[in-house]
Amino acid sequence: MNVLFLGTGAGVPSKQRNVSSLALELLEERGAVWLFDCGEGTQHQILHTSLKLRKIEKIFITHMHGDHIFGLPGLLGSRSFQGAEDPLTIYGPKGITQFVKAALAHSQTHLRYPIEVIEGEGGIVFEDEQFIVEAILLEHGLPSYGYRVMEKDKPGTLMADKLMAAGIKPGPAYQELKDGGTLETEEGKVIHGSDFLGPPKKGKIISICGDTRSCPQLSKLAEDADLLIHEATFGEEDEKLAYEYYHSTTIQAAALAKQCRVKQLVLTHISARYQGDQVGALLNEAGKIYSNTIIAEDLLRLEIK
Amino acid sequence: MNVLFLGTGAGVPSKQRNVSSLALELLEERGAVWLFDCGEGTQHQILHTSLKLRKIEKIFITHMHGDHIFGLPGLLGSRSFQGAEDPLTIYGPKGITQFVKAALAHSQTHLRYPIEVIEGEGGIVFEDEQFIVEAILLEHGLPSYGYRVMEKDKPGTLMADKLMAAGIKPGPAYQELKDGGTLETEEGKVIHGSDFLGPPKKGKIISICGDTRSCPQLSKLAEDADLLIHEATFGEEDEKLAYEYYHSTTIQAAALAKQCRVKQLVLTHISARYQGDQVGALLNEAGKIYSNTIIAEDLLRLEIK
Ligand SMILES: [Zn+2]
Ligand SMILES: [Zn+2]
Repeated sequence: MNVLFLGTGAGVPSKQRNVSSLALELLEERGAVWLFDCGEGTQHQILHTSLKLRKIEKIFITHMHGDHIFGLPGLLGSRSFQGAEDPLTIYGPKGITQFVKAALAHSQTHLRYPIEVIEGEGGIVFEDEQFIVEAILLEHGLPSYGYRVMEKDKPGTLMADKLMAAGIKPGPAYQELKDGGTLETEEGKVIHGSDFLGPPKKGKIISICGDTRSCPQLSKLAEDADLLIHEATFGEEDEKLAYEYYHSTTIQAAALAKQCRVKQLVLTHISARYQGDQVGALLNEAGKIYSNTIIAEDLLRLEIK
Repeated sequence: MNVLFLGTGAGVPSKQRNVSSLALELLEERGAVWLFDCGEGTQHQILHTSLKLRKIEKIFITHMHGDHIFGLPGLLGSRSFQGAEDPLTIYGPKGITQFVKAALAHSQTHLRYPIEVIEGEGGIVFEDEQFIVEAILLEHGLPSYGYRVMEKDKPGTLMADKLMAAGIKPGPAYQELKDGGTLETEEGKVIHGSDFLGPPKKGKIISICGDTRSCPQLSKLAEDADLLIHEATFGEEDEKLAYEYYHSTTIQAAALAKQCRVKQLVLTHISARYQGDQVGALLNEAGKIYSNTIIAEDLLRLEIK
């Protein structure tokens, strides 16, 4: 599981940072990639990575500001142009369906693959045997959601040594035991699979906020996350501006990370006002409160261990 | 007067070529820049040039395909973000008003400057004392316009030597004579300004086609142009494909340039199928028919002399 940052800037593109988008690579887990936000030029950024558009299974939109959605129509069209046939689902706030449909219709873009757009007002937006994704309403002056991606715990590995010692030879029975089944040996002994499994592997939690002012709901989003990706549009000294413009500061993000016991914090949505050493200063502010912090850069790939 | 190519690729962006856009720089003529088409990432390309978004006075859209319009909402928003206050006018086919309005409304993008969108069905779309712009309907399976930009002839320069020989001293009278006025000398001799002007300077003609199949209307677009910018989505051998997909070949563009006595031909909208030497081959095909041909590249700037 990797996070690949595609755009880490705020509001408008700059030479250093494109507007918002990031990819959650779930290639091992499900042979798929999930995108979070899709600012203009996201497909251009992807050209500089190994990511394939056809692998994109889901796109989660945090909010409707242009720097988070204007790359969507073009990316959908190019995915089709490249021959993708697998369905794609878009999750987002009210309005996203209309935006996508209007752009595709006006441009006469006909997609070769089925597309589903799901508008929500928060809560569980997706669940299968592997993952739960919860959308949590934050505060950005218009509906803006953070996404909490929760991987379900995976059963432990089957302890083959212990099974062989109990006289069970490798074969189809192993899969049954791994799935929690039981079997009877020739001697009439009942074997419970659960007794031969290692400890379950805890699923990862990735918390991704789009744009938001510091607010109480963020705790629910960030609680015990393995990785918290948080906007930091302003530095420590601009807390008042951040509040007025519905954005967050470096230290608000760091305090949240600490309070919620997250394992790692990545700051993103960095304004072009901050260049060179000033970006280092942002990191220092946050690091004083929560040390395991980094500042995202375009095309940075982070493995979630 | 310069043409700056911002995107010279076909359909989807590649690492080498972005999707369609070009800027006609009229800085000396009117302190302004006109954009023709605005594919996704046009504002990103502009970051690598000296062009200022606030200088963009007009945007002409050839047709509604995504690779020609998806950069429009973001560019409009960034122009506002950068503080531009001068009005901007967009010209384009039916649907462009709705597309722009929907994208701005859904994203809650509020522009600080007035915007006017003019939908047309061909003919003269703009005229002032300097320029006439005519939109000519071409053939692309949906309404697609070529734009013929005609600079009006400029009066010749006033021949000061000849005036002084005639006894007229430099002063306010010179401007009056330059504007075609007359004056009487102290000796009662009537001086006609027109007798003291050099030959008028012929205005330039720039012909810009978007996407089109080879068609008779192109002659009207290209006639006697100083510069013809023509799509060449296919090579010579793919004339049948070009026809089917409503595109043109290299040699169709070159034959048009020759027939219409244009001064220079630039081929653009180059498919990513053509790389390296293959692009040279496209140029050779066209060059055999019309030698003053070049192939556009992203960020190429051409002075129109
Ligand atoms: Zn925003
Ligand atoms: Zn087209």
